[in-house]
Amino acid sequence: MAAKTIYIAGLGLIGGSLALGIKRGHPDYRVLGYNRSDKSREIALERGIVDEATSDFAAFAPLADVIILCVPIKQTMELIEVLAGLDLKQNVIITDAGSTKLDIVRMAEIHLSPEKVQFVGSHPMAGSHKSGAIAADVNLFENAYYIFTPTALSDSGTIAELKDILSGLHARFIEIDAEEHDRVTSQISHFPHILASSLMEQAAHYADDHEMTRHFAAGGFRDMTRIAESEPGMWTSILLTNRQSVLERISDFKDRLDQVAAYIEQGDELAIWDYFNFGRQARKDMEIHKRGGVDSFYELFVDVPDEEDVILHILELLRGTSLVNIRINEENREDITGILQISFKTAKDLDYAYNKISKETDYPVFTK
Amino acid sequence: MAAKTIYIAGLGLIGGSLALGIKRGHPDYRVLGYNRSDKSREIALERGIVDEATSDFAAFAPLADVIILCVPIKQTMELIEVLAGLDLKQNVIITDAGSTKLDIVRMAEIHLSPEKVQFVGSHPMAGSHKSGAIAADVNLFENAYYIFTPTALSDSGTIAELKDILSGLHARFIEIDAEEHDRVTSQISHFPHILASSLMEQAAHYADDHEMTRHFAAGGFRDMTRIAESEPGMWTSILLTNRQSVLERISDFKDRLDQVAAYIEQGDELAIWDYFNFGRQARKDMEIHKRGGVDSFYELFVDVPDEEDVILHILELLRGTSLVNIRINEENREDITGILQISFKTAKDLDYAYNKISKETDYPVFTK
Repeated sequence: MAAKTIYIAGLGLIGGSLALGIKRGHPDYRVLGYNRSDKSREIALERGIVDEATSDFAAFAPLADVIILCVPIKQTMELIEVLAGLDLKQNVIITDAGSTKLDIVRMAEIHLSPEKVQFVGSHPMAGSHKSGAIAADVNLFENAYYIFTPTALSDSGTIAELKDILSGLHARFIEIDAEEHDRVTSQISHFPHILASSLMEQAAHYADDHEMTRHFAAGGFRDMTRIAESEPGMWTSILLTNRQSVLERISDFKDRLDQVAAYIEQGDELAIWDYFNFGRQARKDMEIHKRGGVDSFYELFVDVPDEEDVILHILELLRGTSLVNIRINEENREDITGILQISFKTAKDLDYAYNKISKETDYPVFTK
Repeated sequence: MAAKTIYIAGLGLIGGSLALGIKRGHPDYRVLGYNRSDKSREIALERGIVDEATSDFAAFAPLADVIILCVPIKQTMELIEVLAGLDLKQNVIITDAGSTKLDIVRMAEIHLSPEKVQFVGSHPMAGSHKSGAIAADVNLFENAYYIFTPTALSDSGTIAELKDILSGLHARFIEIDAEEHDRVTSQISHFPHILASSLMEQAAHYADDHEMTRHFAAGGFRDMTRIAESEPGMWTSILLTNRQSVLERISDFKDRLDQVAAYIEQGDELAIWDYFNFGRQARKDMEIHKRGGVDSFYELFVDVPDEEDVILHILELLRGTSLVNIRINEENREDITGILQISFKTAKDLDYAYNKISKETDYPVFTK
């Protein structure tokens, strides 16, 4: 295939990382970039993220074989309208990177012409606490789910072509209906975000009257509110473009809270036990714990003393293994020091580590 | 002071660790243990956790200067009734280790005689995913909050004496009213537990109709449901002995969900943004992020490549520093590889690490 021209609108973390990944797979492609910020364009050019950059979105659009909109959801929808008025290459492929899909896909179907344009929704499921072109990373999407949502403006050929263009990302491509994407993400991401923020809000208000609330909050509370620290603007847009599914999850959840409240009021020990046990079993059964899921690894627990360089010592023993994470205290009910949890990519490395640490140290070693 | 005889009922993780901690502070004390399980008594004796052990609770109680009930909440209340009928030493100190306090304290106040017995409620705030005498650990309560709840059967002398007896635990002792304890823990622990279990329940049912729910669940969802895997029996007892506070948190939370739902229905962008921003600021302001809180450390982020032994390499650079944790991916919106997060005990070590890693490697380094 002939070398293509790719136009990336938005040279932040996502757009910049996509550009780097595309170039890794196709060093011959020409990558153009758009960003309003002089600084972002400068960094993108300096780092070789793009070959050329503009602050005028319309300027490069007609040159592109593929246009990827990597801007916030609202701006993505605005740029779709802008693109509808431009003289683009015949059969240009347009896609995006938004966290919700149905509103964006509908916007494209309304404004873009099926005779001239191919449009597929995209949601690359990766992110970072960092942002900007400076944080762009060729490995950002490695092993991450990269979701395509087909539209009336796309066919299987469109997605096949995109997969080839994006092959250097080493992502896991998957196709799903836009509406279903928004439903599933409402359950596993958007609504949990509301739970985290509301819990934080509730605890903050409670702490005004109950001072020790600030002090006793420990591991469980910390984990449950972590995502409440995310950037508010992005999550506001997500809720506003996924209203129906999110509202349905809220309503369904309130019913579940009512049910638990009824058990508590009735002092129904068996029902409460069954309720907790169901949640426990359901989580154990989830992909979270299985190979193939997003975070599914082989876990080892080592009961280490609180001594200097103890983690270093363990890692020296494990030199050459495929460890993917290492952390302390994650699985505790409240908080203690001393349990080092190490995640491996393979069962073989887990076995090796178990035997090695058992043999070379006095520390108790467990697998789950 | 003369050597005391301590009687610990329940030789599990908590009771066993308490015994070890007491002995560390007072090697001359005699520690007696009660457990129904032959195996637990055997392990406790073998490991030197207790000097003598019995399967007959009433047998050792009259010998004790201090009795510590380290059994589940329900059994704690039963044993208080049993103690009321025994001929105990004059002025024996009795305490417990339950996760809720008001019901236990009331039980003691009803059944025990203020002329003969001193009773203080206790909640040592530590735990582990492990259990049993085999997991008992002299360091389990190191730096953990150890809460005392005074009763009508105690005075400041009672608590002072307990602090001395428990000094070998190296815990952070704190006094709080039993009712207030139960309110605060309902907010930061008991109610969040319901949120986690209900979210897991909801997602599991949703996955029946929306298969990808199982696959897309990532970091945020994982963190929010982690505690749903806890042992159901203990949490059932907690809810049943803290009904009023938990029900109040449920009802308050439903109002908050209604409020967010109203914002979404109205498409009130500003209100949603304010809501998310409030949660974000509230979490940033919490002890969680401050020195003195339960988990408050100095954090460093290193953008490492996905290469073998990269963590080992970093730790070699940090040999001798006070690092308390190290983990990958914790602060991401969704999931990526590559951000290594290291927590230090001191600002000095954080600075040292920042400079060392910046100087010796090409990896980008950030502090928050």
